[in-house]
Amino acid sequence: MSYRAPVEEVSYFLKTSTSLPNLMAQGLVDLSFDVVDAVLDEAGKFAGSVIAPFDRVADKQGCTLKDGAVTTPEGMRAAYEAWSEAGWSGVAAEEEFGGQNLPTSVTSALTEFWNAASPAFGICGVLTLGAIEALTAHGSAELQHIFLPKLVSGTWTGTMNLTEPQAGSDLAALRSKAVKQADGTYRIFGTKIFITYGEHDIAENIVHLVLARLPDAPAGTKGISLFVVPKFLVNADGSLGARNDAVCAGIEHKLGLHGSPTCTMTFGEKGEGAIGYLVGEENRGLACMFTMMNNARLAVGVQGVAVAERATQRAFAFAKDRKQGKAPGVEGSAPIIAHPDVKRMLLTMRAETDAARALCLKTADALDRSRLLPDPIARAAALAEASLLTPVAKAFSSDAGIEVSSLGIQVHGGMGYVEETGAAQHLRDARIFAIYEGTNGIQAIDLVTRKLPQEGGDVVNALIADYRETAEEVSALNAPDFGHAGPRLAEAVDALGRATRVMLDRVADEPAKALATATPYLRLYARAAGGAFLARTALAAYAERAAGATDPRLAARITVARFFAENLAVEAKGLEEVVNGGAGGVLEAEAVLALG
Amino acid sequence: MSYRAPVEEVSYFLKTSTSLPNLMAQGLVDLSFDVVDAVLDEAGKFAGSVIAPFDRVADKQGCTLKDGAVTTPEGMRAAYEAWSEAGWSGVAAEEEFGGQNLPTSVTSALTEFWNAASPAFGICGVLTLGAIEALTAHGSAELQHIFLPKLVSGTWTGTMNLTEPQAGSDLAALRSKAVKQADGTYRIFGTKIFITYGEHDIAENIVHLVLARLPDAPAGTKGISLFVVPKFLVNADGSLGARNDAVCAGIEHKLGLHGSPTCTMTFGEKGEGAIGYLVGEENRGLACMFTMMNNARLAVGVQGVAVAERATQRAFAFAKDRKQGKAPGVEGSAPIIAHPDVKRMLLTMRAETDAARALCLKTADALDRSRLLPDPIARAAALAEASLLTPVAKAFSSDAGIEVSSLGIQVHGGMGYVEETGAAQHLRDARIFAIYEGTNGIQAIDLVTRKLPQEGGDVVNALIADYRETAEEVSALNAPDFGHAGPRLAEAVDALGRATRVMLDRVADEPAKALATATPYLRLYARAAGGAFLARTALAAYAERAAGATDPRLAARITVARFFAENLAVEAKGLEEVVNGGAGGVLEAEAVLALG
Repeated sequence: MSYRAPVEEVSYFLKTSTSLPNLMAQGLVDLSFDVVDAVLDEAGKFAGSVIAPFDRVADKQGCTLKDGAVTTPEGMRAAYEAWSEAGWSGVAAEEEFGGQNLPTSVTSALTEFWNAASPAFGICGVLTLGAIEALTAHGSAELQHIFLPKLVSGTWTGTMNLTEPQAGSDLAALRSKAVKQADGTYRIFGTKIFITYGEHDIAENIVHLVLARLPDAPAGTKGISLFVVPKFLVNADGSLGARNDAVCAGIEHKLGLHGSPTCTMTFGEKGEGAIGYLVGEENRGLACMFTMMNNARLAVGVQGVAVAERATQRAFAFAKDRKQGKAPGVEGSAPIIAHPDVKRMLLTMRAETDAARALCLKTADALDRSRLLPDPIARAAALAEASLLTPVAKAFSSDAGIEVSSLGIQVHGGMGYVEETGAAQHLRDARIFAIYEGTNGIQAIDLVTRKLPQEGGDVVNALIADYRETAEEVSALNAPDFGHAGPRLAEAVDALGRATRVMLDRVADEPAKALATATPYLRLYARAAGGAFLARTALAAYAERAAGATDPRLAARITVARFFAENLAVEAKGLEEVVNGGAGGVLEAEAVLALG
Repeated sequence: MSYRAPVEEVSYFLKTSTSLPNLMAQGLVDLSFDVVDAVLDEAGKFAGSVIAPFDRVADKQGCTLKDGAVTTPEGMRAAYEAWSEAGWSGVAAEEEFGGQNLPTSVTSALTEFWNAASPAFGICGVLTLGAIEALTAHGSAELQHIFLPKLVSGTWTGTMNLTEPQAGSDLAALRSKAVKQADGTYRIFGTKIFITYGEHDIAENIVHLVLARLPDAPAGTKGISLFVVPKFLVNADGSLGARNDAVCAGIEHKLGLHGSPTCTMTFGEKGEGAIGYLVGEENRGLACMFTMMNNARLAVGVQGVAVAERATQRAFAFAKDRKQGKAPGVEGSAPIIAHPDVKRMLLTMRAETDAARALCLKTADALDRSRLLPDPIARAAALAEASLLTPVAKAFSSDAGIEVSSLGIQVHGGMGYVEETGAAQHLRDARIFAIYEGTNGIQAIDLVTRKLPQEGGDVVNALIADYRETAEEVSALNAPDFGHAGPRLAEAVDALGRATRVMLDRVADEPAKALATATPYLRLYARAAGGAFLARTALAAYAERAAGATDPRLAARITVARFFAENLAVEAKGLEEVVNGGAGGVLEAEAVLALG
């Protein structure tokens, strides 16, 4: 099945539900929607015609490792070269390094398209962008000069080397070692696991960003430094020099993302250490890493949206084509899309996907404002908003990717279980999104313990007030097309408001209980915020219809918002109960935990 | 990781929460719990030591097809032979055919153990038992004499041939043809797909049960007949004769269950037809098929329980072993089981698994009463109960298999995504359970349109009254160990009661709306019933503790029931809203459905 990038949906959302029009009007973004639409359109075509076709092949072939060299599946290198030659690798980077400096709201949409076409392909660009951002924010002028233009042009790719066998979610436990040399460089020793595109054959060099400890570093996360460790050293003239001792010692046999090599990397195994260059200050590596990680977290949320969108398109196409049984108003055998239970599944897929996209694009929009607004107070407020929304966007959207792709299998019936159909691959691919770049449990803990308490709760409460306003507008409109969306949404937002007060107290007073209820709280947040975002877009669509517009997409947006409010936002009630109850039993469960 | 069959849990449930003790006391079941416990124990050991070890190998090797012959993975045949030689294949069958006629509640537990050890292995026995049941209920004495002893001893295996490319959920569309011969046999022509163990090398003959149409049969489901079509014909002396024209033309490359061959079967491709024997009456095949299908539906629910249990055991073992980060009260690096969010995931897995098992065993228990009680009115009532619970047990437990195994991956973090860990296989294996033997959407429709209206709603209302009584007992007990389980459960049961009234009216008056809300209704049913069943068992455990018993499992059962009520049964509120709202928007969604 071919992939059709949701260009109109993204464009409509950017126009009606983000600050991009304002930023353009104020001259803070030097773009028009004509240009944005052209970029989206072009990217959509590229994703559908160049990347999507080899995604199944890549899944089937996977990657192989021989003598430290990784061979990626047929077509991967050609697609990557075409993609970087077309300039897509640099859309988010600064112009001084050859980038196009497009707003994050726009580049997030592009990230969605690449990853919908092939997440095994798309993740490489996500990591490279992370490296670009870390070097842009923290690298010395010299490091920037050497590495950024090649990363921005896509000639080289980037990696993030955090995880070690004993240090997954707990970076404090990492042991990789860095020893300073007389010439100011460092020698790096250690083993890193789960390194995405740690080794490959699609570009000529690989720029590893590696966390390691200096010999005299403090224990824990305050003793971690960040280094650039290129696969090939770079000569003064920019040409490639000697092979560095950064070697792929193994690749994982994974549930999905078969086209993307996941490597065990050894640094300095030959004895003298891999040559590395310090990024930022010694012992301040974690702050640098968070620069790339926060953006990577949003990008992983976008991956969830991407695979959900692809799975949804595939399920709709199948349901329109597959005939089975009778349905009211249909002569003979009916396409299964005519059956109410199948409709319910398809609408769930569509609504979850659109809500996840809305959460990601709203996060991206807040990031844009945090960078572009002239007023520093407004910038800080936008940054606080982005910080709060990032874990929600990452966790909810990655969960949505899993749930929607699982529903996609269900819509296909028995065919969904057969690999050739393609529906199963989406679930296999999506399953990692809830894990990498910080598990969704870590996201929920981040939300509750670090993001809610920002400004004593003022940040989250202002956002909730905004969601409430949307719900009230829908209720006040009292339009039949919205069904009971207004009251259902208001209930969800009110539940979120109450649960937020509970959590703000709890973080201070009962931290263990806060941790035990962080995940249901995050989901409650996403149910209310996602519903409000969809409703906001639907209100714009409603106004256009009232003014005479007839594009069927306008009516569809209203239906999706209604469906979400009436069928998914209503989960809020139960979730609030779980939060209030302190995840009853979790902290008193020793008997169960001992027995297993 | 080794599998340890939950012998004590099953035994405790049978003793405290089913009618088995009463049936024993009345002499209707000629067994004691000493014997039952010994059987469970023996089966558990066999499952853990003989079957479980080759499950990963089977997944990795898969099946191959060459010249119509299927080779199963290494160890499958040996395990199957040991299993049938030990007498496990015949535990549910009647004694006159060599079976042991054990109650379904006990055999369901055994089915769980085999399928937890390896669902790719276990599904073969499920299908064979289906064939045994169909022949026992509907076969002529001659057919029974020829086929039953060999099926019961496991010397031969059975299959169910329903699905055709154009006829999946819609059996009315099936086209396979049967032509009567002068000698009373039939010639069968047609192609069947997704036939589990349709061809294999683990037993000497395969007894296919095949649905087909006679030339003059009425259209639709009233023109379907059931035939036995053996792979090898059987001579008068019981020895194997000529090869029948029932041939495996292909096997599927599936998401999971790699060890189980899923075959495309052609009948009569060589021209003269495969030789078949009519089961039951002409054109009454569907009724016969439902005999095997209803029991297979329960067995698929049990498969969900099985994989959920295995995934839960694996996650607990990992969480106790894996150290990461700090936790209150733990020196140094803490096992991740000490982290509240991990505890929450593990308790969710345990509670969902136990609730699913309770639903399946209660269904099995109703089946036992429907067969064994002396009073025909009581038997009919038990049958109505079993009929109602079967779709709930199938759908909820299969969904639980998927959700729990997905959570199991999450508990493992990055390791969960690596196939060698084993956690990912559980999700791949479990994903089919929601599809085969009637998709979960079909189960929900069956529940709402056929099972709720039994006796004008009296059947369902009596069950709900029973769940309410349990909730009230918990509330009345007012014991701290139960937390707020009593009120939470009562709310869930009340929500179910109200939603049931809505649905009973709707089935008659607004059938499309009933269909659109059938799935959320079924889940609501399972939330209330599952919670009540766990609470019933926990009440028994509470009484034992009050009387001085100290087995830590008793406390664990109470915690699990509490956790379920406070964290999972609370979903009921939102689900009731969805049911009441008529799955708002589903039936007015043409704009979305047209766009995709």
